[in-house]
Amino acid sequence: MANDNKKLVEDITSMDVDFAQWYTDVVKKAELCDYSSVKGCMIMEPAGFAIWDAVREGLDRRFKETGVENCAMPLFIPDSLLQKEKDHVEGFAPEVAWVTRGGSEKLQEKLAVRPTSETLFCDYYAKKVHSYRDLPKLLNQWCSVVRWEKTTRPFLRSREFWWQEGHTAHATAEESRERTIQMLNVYADFCEEDLAIPVIRGQKTEKERFAGAEATFTIEALMHDGQALQSGTSHDFGDGFARAFNIQYTDKDNKLQYVHQTSWGLSTRIIGAIIMVHGDNDGLKLPPHIAPVQVMICPIQQQKAGVLDKAAELLGRLKKAGLRVRLDDREKTPGFKFADCEMRGIPLRVEIGPRDIENNQAVLVRRDTREKTVVSLDELEKTAADMLEDIQKNMFEMAKEHLEKHTFIAKTIDEMEEILDDKTGFVKAMWCGDRACEDAVKEKTGATSRCIPFKQECICDTCINCGKPAQKMVYWGRAY
Amino acid sequence: MANDNKKLVEDITSMDVDFAQWYTDVVKKAELCDYSSVKGCMIMEPAGFAIWDAVREGLDRRFKETGVENCAMPLFIPDSLLQKEKDHVEGFAPEVAWVTRGGSEKLQEKLAVRPTSETLFCDYYAKKVHSYRDLPKLLNQWCSVVRWEKTTRPFLRSREFWWQEGHTAHATAEESRERTIQMLNVYADFCEEDLAIPVIRGQKTEKERFAGAEATFTIEALMHDGQALQSGTSHDFGDGFARAFNIQYTDKDNKLQYVHQTSWGLSTRIIGAIIMVHGDNDGLKLPPHIAPVQVMICPIQQQKAGVLDKAAELLGRLKKAGLRVRLDDREKTPGFKFADCEMRGIPLRVEIGPRDIENNQAVLVRRDTREKTVVSLDELEKTAADMLEDIQKNMFEMAKEHLEKHTFIAKTIDEMEEILDDKTGFVKAMWCGDRACEDAVKEKTGATSRCIPFKQECICDTCINCGKPAQKMVYWGRAY
Repeated sequence: MANDNKKLVEDITSMDVDFAQWYTDVVKKAELCDYSSVKGCMIMEPAGFAIWDAVREGLDRRFKETGVENCAMPLFIPDSLLQKEKDHVEGFAPEVAWVTRGGSEKLQEKLAVRPTSETLFCDYYAKKVHSYRDLPKLLNQWCSVVRWEKTTRPFLRSREFWWQEGHTAHATAEESRERTIQMLNVYADFCEEDLAIPVIRGQKTEKERFAGAEATFTIEALMHDGQALQSGTSHDFGDGFARAFNIQYTDKDNKLQYVHQTSWGLSTRIIGAIIMVHGDNDGLKLPPHIAPVQVMICPIQQQKAGVLDKAAELLGRLKKAGLRVRLDDREKTPGFKFADCEMRGIPLRVEIGPRDIENNQAVLVRRDTREKTVVSLDELEKTAADMLEDIQKNMFEMAKEHLEKHTFIAKTIDEMEEILDDKTGFVKAMWCGDRACEDAVKEKTGATSRCIPFKQECICDTCINCGKPAQKMVYWGRAY
Repeated sequence: MANDNKKLVEDITSMDVDFAQWYTDVVKKAELCDYSSVKGCMIMEPAGFAIWDAVREGLDRRFKETGVENCAMPLFIPDSLLQKEKDHVEGFAPEVAWVTRGGSEKLQEKLAVRPTSETLFCDYYAKKVHSYRDLPKLLNQWCSVVRWEKTTRPFLRSREFWWQEGHTAHATAEESRERTIQMLNVYADFCEEDLAIPVIRGQKTEKERFAGAEATFTIEALMHDGQALQSGTSHDFGDGFARAFNIQYTDKDNKLQYVHQTSWGLSTRIIGAIIMVHGDNDGLKLPPHIAPVQVMICPIQQQKAGVLDKAAELLGRLKKAGLRVRLDDREKTPGFKFADCEMRGIPLRVEIGPRDIENNQAVLVRRDTREKTVVSLDELEKTAADMLEDIQKNMFEMAKEHLEKHTFIAKTIDEMEEILDDKTGFVKAMWCGDRACEDAVKEKTGATSRCIPFKQECICDTCINCGKPAQKMVYWGRAY
């Protein structure tokens, strides 16, 4: 790399030296988000917001294919409404921000800034659902929610974060369970196909369940530092909320029944996952499917006659071919532009200079492998498109390899301790199902139960902690 | 119309009897929005949200074409930040909702739930802008804002509403003024091309200016009842905010300069405009360009063999042709479906029954003119697409005719009073520029100054109130 861009890369701490600092440096240097004057709240800058927009597009399309429609609920929840479901309010009350004044008047009832909107959707469904013909209700909203966290980190934990929250109501328990799993699979497919992030699909233990849910399902991803990140959750509420909010319908036999409900959410945390699964010491690495800019054209010796014209021509051609492409015509050295482009994670770079033009060629440089390929300009569109697909696949394969290399097996708690002493990653181990053993694992190893995976394996017959007969194989790990 | 759907339409009050009730009925029957358990806050239901989503898509594309990027600012504004620009805080403080508690702690500084985000963008620009190379900054966000209004109406005035707010920073006063007008024209073009709503473009008087702005520009539309609706505004702040927030940059001559700023917003109010400009006694009437469903296929005698199959085939064909189309295969009478489809404002209806299938034809019914056309199925896609374009044009023409018919001229305040006694609409009249005369017009006629239009005309030489030499021609009207 040229000297003039040394500064650019120097600013990023090596991930081997300090992973947390590396993360913060990448977020800041790539201008994904910035701290705001509101403690614990972040500003999503254009580069970060564009990633979130791409996530939204990819997920929203998939939601709609399953019949889900978007809507918008109020930002506020009256105190009395939040109180209606006991477990739910207990889970959220400690971290709620409260509006107590409107204009010059003190409010008669304080309003919660929504930490999540189950109660609002329930209130709405209680009004709208009367007959079996009104079911299912399949609604979603894209919004921000507020949780008054004590410690915060960009994207991973902040007092305000953006997400989507889907809320559905069904006639039967079977249907709500089916929808819960269906939406978890939508998340998993999206993560694997578009974000190139392999995930473990499974169920949360009772301890890790969402406040008010009968069952919580999760997708768990492994970051580059070997820590887990819960990347999306889907909850089956059974008829618990329906009983609390009195959401009833008349079935075909004219009998009154409670609905069964689900909710499912994926948040801006996922941007943290993209950074920590794919990034390297030169910065961000964005999977082509969701990269806001897939191709950056970097002219060489752009002051020379014809270079910028040719670059602009290529820009037009690649745009026309349906690629998201930009031209970096700033008055900077090529070396600076290359490093900048790498730091911002743009999957593919096209270098074009006077000699290339002479030879009717361009140099394509992949962000994932750094591989350089000289291509004839006649083949530019096809080669670039193919290469992007190959980068997408390769990024998934690399992440999968990392996941597999950092997934271990333990039969006893001593084994688990030993593994986590000098390695990081998931540990697969058997569990009897007792909360006490789950707590013991956490206390001794720092690892929490991430999920009971759908794909079960039998590692041994006994619980990792108590030695009693095992019920389930569990993924354990230290987590964000 | 058949008897079985009488109930459906009966529920909508005639607009001639009670326009306000007609409006509420349409909003409710078409399920655009619902009241929530939070006083003054609305729920945007799927049909209403889908319109807002279409508005967002149409505007966002236009914004991006002018170089604007999206971002997301925090929901909260610290009290001290809101206080920084004197005029601005005076304008908004009376209607701010305040967060005073977070979790179990009382906040040291209360936080405003954003009523608008000038102060947050200024705070951000103060950090990010250093050199002339950092300019212009062209940012926008799609979000909801909160203003503690006393009286509320669906879409037109509610305590929480959704909008976009663009905020830009420029090197010079010329550039910020240019951007202000540019964005106003984006709004106007969007309203006219996509919403089929003709608008008057102009400048607000000093009295009607945005809190903290040097100049406010507006687009004003005329509703069916002759009242005006401010449909989008664009503000030039000059360097007022820059001085309050100390946003300075080093120019090419290495001198420190203040930036010049703009902001511009369009909100869910526009859905109120769509309803009140185009709707009729049968319900909503959506312009094809932004109708979430452009074509509804209504099968006739759908229980007969082959009808639903054929309807599904047409659905597939029209989808493939790029139209937004749905099939109403509910077990309801055709009459009910027709009325339902009209009430929801769907621009075009395709009727297909056994006899149509036999004759290889379908019946197309336009929502705007009720005109029925029998078309060969071989021509279906082309005819439907052409008809939608024609409906779009015709709806604009009809709205324009209404606007022109309800725009009057007055030379004296008596004339204006007389006109507004039994007519409703805009009154064009001359004005000397004095606030006192503006106030007098409002007191005597109930009409406020809507704007000083860019397209000036000379109606006479003297001010409508004081008779002194006139400066400008002004559009006056009663407004929402």
